[in-house]
Amino acid sequence: MAKDKQFVSEITPQGEDFSRWYIDVIKKAELMDYSPVRGCIVFRPEGFELWENIQDELDRRFKETGHRNAYFPLFIPESFFQKEKDHVEGFNPELPWVTEAAGEQLEERLAIRPTSETMIGHMYAKWIQSYRDLPVKINQWANVVRWEKRTLPFLRTSEFLWQEGHTAHETEEEAREETMQMLEIYRDFVENFLAMPVIVGQKTPSEKFAGAVDTFSIEAMMKDGRAVQAGTSHYLGTNFAVAFDIKFLDRENNLQHAHTTSWGVSTRLIGALIMVHGDDRGLALPPKVAPTQVVMIPIGPPKTREQVIARVDELYAELKKAGIRVRVDDRADLSPGWKFNEYEMRGVPIRLELGPRDMENGAAVLVSRSSGEKRVVQQSGIVDEVTRLLDEIQREMYDKALRFREEHSKSVDTLDELKAQQEASRGFVEAGWCGSEACERQVKEETGATSRNIPFQPEHEKSTCLVCGAEAKHTVVFARAY
Amino acid sequence: MAKDKQFVSEITPQGEDFSRWYIDVIKKAELMDYSPVRGCIVFRPEGFELWENIQDELDRRFKETGHRNAYFPLFIPESFFQKEKDHVEGFNPELPWVTEAAGEQLEERLAIRPTSETMIGHMYAKWIQSYRDLPVKINQWANVVRWEKRTLPFLRTSEFLWQEGHTAHETEEEAREETMQMLEIYRDFVENFLAMPVIVGQKTPSEKFAGAVDTFSIEAMMKDGRAVQAGTSHYLGTNFAVAFDIKFLDRENNLQHAHTTSWGVSTRLIGALIMVHGDDRGLALPPKVAPTQVVMIPIGPPKTREQVIARVDELYAELKKAGIRVRVDDRADLSPGWKFNEYEMRGVPIRLELGPRDMENGAAVLVSRSSGEKRVVQQSGIVDEVTRLLDEIQREMYDKALRFREEHSKSVDTLDELKAQQEASRGFVEAGWCGSEACERQVKEETGATSRNIPFQPEHEKSTCLVCGAEAKHTVVFARAY
Repeated sequence: MAKDKQFVSEITPQGEDFSRWYIDVIKKAELMDYSPVRGCIVFRPEGFELWENIQDELDRRFKETGHRNAYFPLFIPESFFQKEKDHVEGFNPELPWVTEAAGEQLEERLAIRPTSETMIGHMYAKWIQSYRDLPVKINQWANVVRWEKRTLPFLRTSEFLWQEGHTAHETEEEAREETMQMLEIYRDFVENFLAMPVIVGQKTPSEKFAGAVDTFSIEAMMKDGRAVQAGTSHYLGTNFAVAFDIKFLDRENNLQHAHTTSWGVSTRLIGALIMVHGDDRGLALPPKVAPTQVVMIPIGPPKTREQVIARVDELYAELKKAGIRVRVDDRADLSPGWKFNEYEMRGVPIRLELGPRDMENGAAVLVSRSSGEKRVVQQSGIVDEVTRLLDEIQREMYDKALRFREEHSKSVDTLDELKAQQEASRGFVEAGWCGSEACERQVKEETGATSRNIPFQPEHEKSTCLVCGAEAKHTVVFARAY
Repeated sequence: MAKDKQFVSEITPQGEDFSRWYIDVIKKAELMDYSPVRGCIVFRPEGFELWENIQDELDRRFKETGHRNAYFPLFIPESFFQKEKDHVEGFNPELPWVTEAAGEQLEERLAIRPTSETMIGHMYAKWIQSYRDLPVKINQWANVVRWEKRTLPFLRTSEFLWQEGHTAHETEEEAREETMQMLEIYRDFVENFLAMPVIVGQKTPSEKFAGAVDTFSIEAMMKDGRAVQAGTSHYLGTNFAVAFDIKFLDRENNLQHAHTTSWGVSTRLIGALIMVHGDDRGLALPPKVAPTQVVMIPIGPPKTREQVIARVDELYAELKKAGIRVRVDDRADLSPGWKFNEYEMRGVPIRLELGPRDMENGAAVLVSRSSGEKRVVQQSGIVDEVTRLLDEIQREMYDKALRFREEHSKSVDTLDELKAQQEASRGFVEAGWCGSEACERQVKEETGATSRNIPFQPEHEKSTCLVCGAEAKHTVVFARAY
């Protein structure tokens, strides 16, 4: 057992150093590796499969709601950024520039896209002439680059993968409906597929997307109490339509600017997934996103081994046929104990053990990664038993994360209370806010917490601003954020 | 009908100007648009869906053969290119360089990846220590950039999309098996999914990948007789393993360099697909890759319209349930004739017409895009009838393309014969070759045709070199190529 002990001790406990825990886990589970390019990571197969499952599920939902995929160029001419004032201010500090190609200086520098509103705005202006051309509802899966000073694998990397939806509409009403529809798709996906509860709300003006009229977000709480913005949806008004000349003849034959939206989630979801569900034993993956949902491990002495493996293979075939993502680890040179630790560390939701005694009883043992519960079930009903347990685990992981968030959320009335809460435990804080940027900035400067969003459903409606004491215009959730 | 005529006349006939025909078709069918960045195109939804179908099918085949997806950085440090001499010579002239980011000059320039052998080689060196770590079989779907002087949508663009497989193995034998396996997957996919017959063979040394020991390719013939290299698979020997220090302890505890492979296909397949199957009416898509396989068009006078549409909707539901990609165009403001032209131009394999007379007879009319054949079928067996016709069209399109290639292929003995053939009709030419680069170059200089590959199954074994008359080492296929 000495080996098993050593194995676990390679992961720094969360309570000791959460950041080190995170890095230990993602390296050990082979989700990623550092690359020789500053701030860029390699998505190893174990990590990329999470992204593939996220992509498949979201892509299905986008297409169901009438969106189609397209692909726009990686390079954006410098002049494009100048066209929308807020946009250039927001993104200029983070852009990498291509200045030469094929041995020659370029006449105009090309940015690597940090997001594609400008390029897509330019193209939409060519494609949209009449209300008959609207709405345009396009999504793009792509790599984007923002040259970050401080990086953290998955959560903040210079190059990352994401999807960016871009739509254009006849009216503000329709564009706002789209903005909300996509926000709701993100909420539902993140809560029900990734088992991460989120606060849904609107960003304050100082935190909104550069160039947007309104930005909405979903915010999740990590196990160290910090927030991750898990997805955003923007109503862009006619800002980009004016900048890029997206005009159409409306039903009354008047020339109008289109109303546009954009919305995105990125590979930072992988980082959030790990920080919401992981524990001192490693990853814990919700069944719906887990590349492997069930790992089957034959146990017992060598003399019964062949017989046990034969039965494991039969059950494997049944589970696989039922659409369950299952694998068998029948390596003879590794102990069951070593394997148990290994798959717990990798976050596989269910371990199925089968030994000689189980064979006699027509039974099998299912062990839940997240709760540790052991359940002896009949082999004859294996598909139903596994399916039921996967559903239970999915629900239970969501509930657990929700409880954690509730335990680490507080409603406060003053900046001092907020400070005290942040020093004690971090977490989310609900407070009243007068709407002034000065008060918002003071919170940030004195506590490190930023306004996450103005939740649609605040737990407590606040009457006064936590900083200046004036009348509160909004109830805001503050937290330190990744 | 004046409108219909005008409609068709917007596409330049192939016989008049093949290049203009190509551009007319891909613009009119909304597969792409030009972008404001030189040599980069926008993949519009109609074009991108072709790529999505190609990706789905290939990805399934890669995974079935034990490959997993990963993602490596877009940026490659300049020093990496210096490590493999042939590689840097081959790619240096085409690289765009990032020289500044976030307002500062970079200490080392970063290339945008033209291909990822160097970055992946660097990472494999970290991951591979022992024969137990082998084989490593990873694929990446990504954008890559090669700054091209002359570009052509899909076939040659500065940024394009592709997949690049990279594997590492214990032995040359295993790596060569992998190289051949992937070549065969490409051949089977391109012939049976895209209905494009290909010549399978080995590249001559002067045409192989920069850094490879051996390069193998599949070559397809376009309708103007020119060739497109549709996929390549490389045995890289230990070249990249030596350059990047990919070493492992073998089963006898000796330190060895790994043997690596790489293989790829790109969005140029979309261009080839169009040039192999398209005609003066527009696109013609093989059923397996077509985003829409059947378009249903209700016809007849207004008074029966409602009834006809109701029946069309029932049949639509049946076809959809059977997994057939079907859509209905019941727009009332456009004539059936206009729609017929529209979907022929877009290359939809089957048009299903339903009118009042068909209703009386329980019949429907199926029209094949590729042959023009009309078939009256019973509504009661619609799923079987459509499925059968889709299969027939798929086969027939392949056979037609194969016949075209055979009619435009010739076996010659001398350079003069090759010249005469190229002047008369282009197409493929089989000829003997002594193996010298000088003779190969002379063919290119005098005729514009390049050696496509040394086919595994030459039609005619040649005994003398077409240029110098010395003994032929190989039989080579020559052609002008995109």
